[in-house]
Amino acid sequence: MRRLSVFNHVSLDGYFVGANGDFSWAHNGNDDPEYAEFVAGNAGGAGQMLFGRVTYELMARYWPSPMADQHNPAVAKGMNRMAKVVFSRSLAEAAWSDTTLVRGELVSEVCKMKEQQGPDMVILGSGSIVSQLAPEKLIDEYQMMIDPVALGKGRTMFEGMTEKLTLKLVKTRVFKNGKILVTYEAT
Amino acid sequence: MRRLSVFNHVSLDGYFVGANGDFSWAHNGNDDPEYAEFVAGNAGGAGQMLFGRVTYELMARYWPSPMADQHNPAVAKGMNRMAKVVFSRSLAEAAWSDTTLVRGELVSEVCKMKEQQGPDMVILGSGSIVSQLAPEKLIDEYQMMIDPVALGKGRTMFEGMTEKLTLKLVKTRVFKNGKILVTYEAT
Repeated sequence: MRRLSVFNHVSLDGYFVGANGDFSWAHNGNDDPEYAEFVAGNAGGAGQMLFGRVTYELMARYWPSPMADQHNPAVAKGMNRMAKVVFSRSLAEAAWSDTTLVRGELVSEVCKMKEQQGPDMVILGSGSIVSQLAPEKLIDEYQMMIDPVALGKGRTMFEGMTEKLTLKLVKTRVFKNGKILVTYEAT
Repeated sequence: MRRLSVFNHVSLDGYFVGANGDFSWAHNGNDDPEYAEFVAGNAGGAGQMLFGRVTYELMARYWPSPMADQHNPAVAKGMNRMAKVVFSRSLAEAAWSDTTLVRGELVSEVCKMKEQQGPDMVILGSGSIVSQLAPEKLIDEYQMMIDPVALGKGRTMFEGMTEKLTLKLVKTRVFKNGKILVTYEAT
């Protein structure tokens, strides 16, 4: 069984993106060497990335661009290299390198994928995907990088869930730049 | 200068109350002895509590009730005993023990209060108050008890802020029940 996790930056008011998809706040503190090492380590991973359409389109615009290569060369290389899946019924094509477009019903598609052979999978961003898979207990691990900033407005990755979801805290790691990486498992 | 802090439970999606003011989730894990000791210590404090109307009315109904005395006797005693201030223009009276009703403009009233002699002040709940005082840099410290639960719906205490608020992480404390107490200061 392949493991499915989610990794997201989260503001103090619970948002993984601010108003108008603003994600600039998550890049603060990149000059902390220990944190930079963590980020580079993530970018060197061998997993498969899963996206909803909105996050996919944001990332497909940014990561292959010269700006990304300038500001975050290691991460950009990793993001462009790794295998990607986007779940969407409306997307006509998915042109970002090594992307599979999946049009089927989300929950059953992810069930199938978990049973197939392959690398572990990680969801980035993609609140609509997380809030549908979490209640089905299909997400094994939640990694949240809690950033020391409140945004006032944004989207949470649990938006639309109708039942509370209780998780189990398994790890915390505090960085000098004030970010806290918290890891939870499904219960 | 009196110090003003805020203390709130916060869900993984950033809410200090769930839908319809639901706060039951924050009481999970009260059986962790170390956590119970922390809660009892808080209830024994000597500060003054500040509320917006919505939180005040919720708490004024709960804490003097027999139910509170049964479930949380130490906290109920503290909540009923401590001095309270509620900011409201619409409230006709504030009948909960030792409450001062303040009708003036929030920011200037809090400025005055900070300059007066007296105990330190703490805001509980009261998102509308926090989101107005935070941008004015009137809140010195933010204590958030991050509970291992996602609610799907609720209110954040930074709702309505139009600018990002960057804070400085000063302390973290992990409890066995999976709650994490994080403390930030204004920058």
